[in-house]
Amino acid sequence: MSATVPPTPRTRIRRIAERGRYDADTVREIVDAAWHCHVAFVDEGGVHCIPMACWRSGDALYLHGSNGSRMLKVLAGGAEVCVTITHLDGLVLARSAFHHSMNYRSAVIYGQCTRVPEEDKPSLLEQFMRHIAPGRESQVRPPDPNELAATLVLRLPLTEAAAKIREGGPKDDDADMSRDVWAGVLPVHLAHLPAVRDPACSIEPPGYVREWTANT
Amino acid sequence: MSATVPPTPRTRIRRIAERGRYDADTVREIVDAAWHCHVAFVDEGGVHCIPMACWRSGDALYLHGSNGSRMLKVLAGGAEVCVTITHLDGLVLARSAFHHSMNYRSAVIYGQCTRVPEEDKPSLLEQFMRHIAPGRESQVRPPDPNELAATLVLRLPLTEAAAKIREGGPKDDDADMSRDVWAGVLPVHLAHLPAVRDPACSIEPPGYVREWTANT
Repeated sequence: MSATVPPTPRTRIRRIAERGRYDADTVREIVDAAWHCHVAFVDEGGVHCIPMACWRSGDALYLHGSNGSRMLKVLAGGAEVCVTITHLDGLVLARSAFHHSMNYRSAVIYGQCTRVPEEDKPSLLEQFMRHIAPGRESQVRPPDPNELAATLVLRLPLTEAAAKIREGGPKDDDADMSRDVWAGVLPVHLAHLPAVRDPACSIEPPGYVREWTANT
Repeated sequence: MSATVPPTPRTRIRRIAERGRYDADTVREIVDAAWHCHVAFVDEGGVHCIPMACWRSGDALYLHGSNGSRMLKVLAGGAEVCVTITHLDGLVLARSAFHHSMNYRSAVIYGQCTRVPEEDKPSLLEQFMRHIAPGRESQVRPPDPNELAATLVLRLPLTEAAAKIREGGPKDDDADMSRDVWAGVLPVHLAHLPAVRDPACSIEPPGYVREWTANT
């Protein structure tokens, strides 16, 4: 059962409002399908929009990076952020130029990041590893104390969040329906290409590598 | 021949500086491979990060949207923007958790949008159509005066822009090279899936539809 969070002035979708979704499950699905997001924030140099890896655990999105990163320091310092994840699903070809569109699923999250306490970092980073390759968290060398100390993990609650989804075919004006032009959707999809082994590696690929292209 | 624009304080890449590229060709290639971008800007409600369709013409990126959109009005009003395009190319699996990474190509553009004059809108929107489906601009019904009036086209120069690229395999510490764990890259790629014809359309697919999946 998915909680529907009432939209705030920031998350309420006004433009084509019927595309807006405010239930937690829809936001989570969009977040879970992503490996990266775009983080917008303001510092003394102005507004920035930076791609970052991300993962979800429970009701929060997590970001991580170097302790020395200026950006991470600004985020950890409580800057307001807007984090957006977008999956492009297709180009929608209508009979009129005006009604061309794109199919997509996007999630927009507003809030402030907080720094994850030291003791919570190892398990959260393990969850990130599982998000990338389930099972790998027990195969790789885990972070040593220096690496952990060098890594900042930030938590952004999924509280003030909204999704926007466009799906399906073109919506043409009645007067254009008989026009002599192909109409439909050109779908796109983030496909998995065959794994590329490191030349210095002679280890047999584990299941998540063997099944990578099948899980596309 | 590609001009290399000196980085500004905003575009200079400090974190893993060797991944930064400042030549116009690299930025253009990343822009041309995209159908959408993320636009960060600030209004009275704070910072926002909104996905938008985009295309390039010459040395500028173009955005468009409804005349009635609050966001477009803010952008057309000269708000500072940071527009980012990111192509995720792969998950980089290293022998240590710490050295996991992602392969990507990103372009970050700073500046202010200007409103494109009415007389330039038709040809710029035609270029957008060609970017989506070359040749389609002469097949669809072109925008009528009302549709053109309802559409704002914004221009953002590619002047203050930088690209950041990570490619290749994992970079592990020497001490980890003999570890018993698979290392390499799990590549991803925005693939073209088979075109979906609108049920109400009985027109033969044009070349760009027939060749859609081949051009992936």
